[in-house]
Amino acid sequence: MKVELIPVEGIPEASSGDDVADLVMGGLSASGIDLVDGDVVVVTHKIISKSEGRVVPLQDPGPDGHRYLVEREASTILRRRGSLVIAKTRHGFVCANAGVDRSNVAPGNALLLPLDPDASAHRIRVRIERALGVSIAVLVTDTFGRAWRNGLVDVTIGISGLIPIVDYRGTKDTHGNTLEVTEVAIADEIAAAADLVMGKATGIPAAVVRGVDYPKGPGRATDMVRDASEDMFR
Amino acid sequence: MKVELIPVEGIPEASSGDDVADLVMGGLSASGIDLVDGDVVVVTHKIISKSEGRVVPLQDPGPDGHRYLVEREASTILRRRGSLVIAKTRHGFVCANAGVDRSNVAPGNALLLPLDPDASAHRIRVRIERALGVSIAVLVTDTFGRAWRNGLVDVTIGISGLIPIVDYRGTKDTHGNTLEVTEVAIADEIAAAADLVMGKATGIPAAVVRGVDYPKGPGRATDMVRDASEDMFR
Repeated sequence: MKVELIPVEGIPEASSGDDVADLVMGGLSASGIDLVDGDVVVVTHKIISKSEGRVVPLQDPGPDGHRYLVEREASTILRRRGSLVIAKTRHGFVCANAGVDRSNVAPGNALLLPLDPDASAHRIRVRIERALGVSIAVLVTDTFGRAWRNGLVDVTIGISGLIPIVDYRGTKDTHGNTLEVTEVAIADEIAAAADLVMGKATGIPAAVVRGVDYPKGPGRATDMVRDASEDMFR
Repeated sequence: MKVELIPVEGIPEASSGDDVADLVMGGLSASGIDLVDGDVVVVTHKIISKSEGRVVPLQDPGPDGHRYLVEREASTILRRRGSLVIAKTRHGFVCANAGVDRSNVAPGNALLLPLDPDASAHRIRVRIERALGVSIAVLVTDTFGRAWRNGLVDVTIGISGLIPIVDYRGTKDTHGNTLEVTEVAIADEIAAAADLVMGKATGIPAAVVRGVDYPKGPGRATDMVRDASEDMFR
């Protein structure tokens, strides 16, 4: 079955105290999108962080405010090279600068990750489901670098209504072999797909992904954080 | 603009000597898909490896054939844990078991990565463009694990007609800040998106991704291999 990636246009700049579900529903209406059961609404964390007040003036922490913020947001520093820090956030995500972003925010400020992106996703989902009478999933995304590969891709940092890993363990392929690829990170594949219509410079902060046969249920983005005991690259 | 992910159904099992472009065009016809200019045809490496004879009987290298093959396919071993080896292939890709796969192939055999996936992509693209009179891009994909995150995602290991990294360096965001996210791995985002309609157990080995505004040009998948001097996780 075909899958559609639909940009949600017309969402205004978010401010502290805004209701992200309302912003998204306004965009859906402006874009002429009627949600249907099973749609995945993908929202970049940026509008969530702004609505939740996770914007910090860079001068407040002191002259080296960015570095201070990165240290404060990090639970573990994995690597440093020049001004680049690869850190684990308190949620468990490994990313550059512990998610502290000086773009996509008024100059002189930094944008931090939401404190609990799974909870943010859940609030958005419940509000949209009640308002529009549909059954959906919501993903909150950010743009991360990867080990070994150039370029960044969008990944999922908050989830509601979807199990992020499809588990094929025990499944046979068409030859009768047990599959070697057993766990597919479908939430991250949906996040990457959605970025194809969101774009970095265009300011489109949400997309609808329609037609994916994903496992429904109470998944969390932190289910995708590899346990320290299994992590070979720390 | 909306993006569509369209599965190419009806592609038969490939054998050594098959022409992958013919197999894909047969599937397009069977699926009722008319390619249009700008489409990206995404093909899993499995049918390419099979058509190029990259299937090896596991007993040939000896009783520990799988391990022997992994060592032979690897240029560098990064980590070992139990039977799992994280290795760099001769192309430069870092993945489990240097791409040696015992599923998706007749039992008792292993499937290796194509010797030159960019060249494979190019041959497929040229044949399809000439036969159908369209201007397209072709991506060859495989399923890779990631550092720090559970679950696997499809990534691009061969390219023709597309620049894999969109370079936003110097671009301003809507606030006038220079973007911190400067290089987006659009080829990997397209690969991940395409996997949403290909599926691991269903045997659908190709998809058409329609509507992505990607940079056209002579890109190579090895452009996404991070240079050793910049790689902090070896």
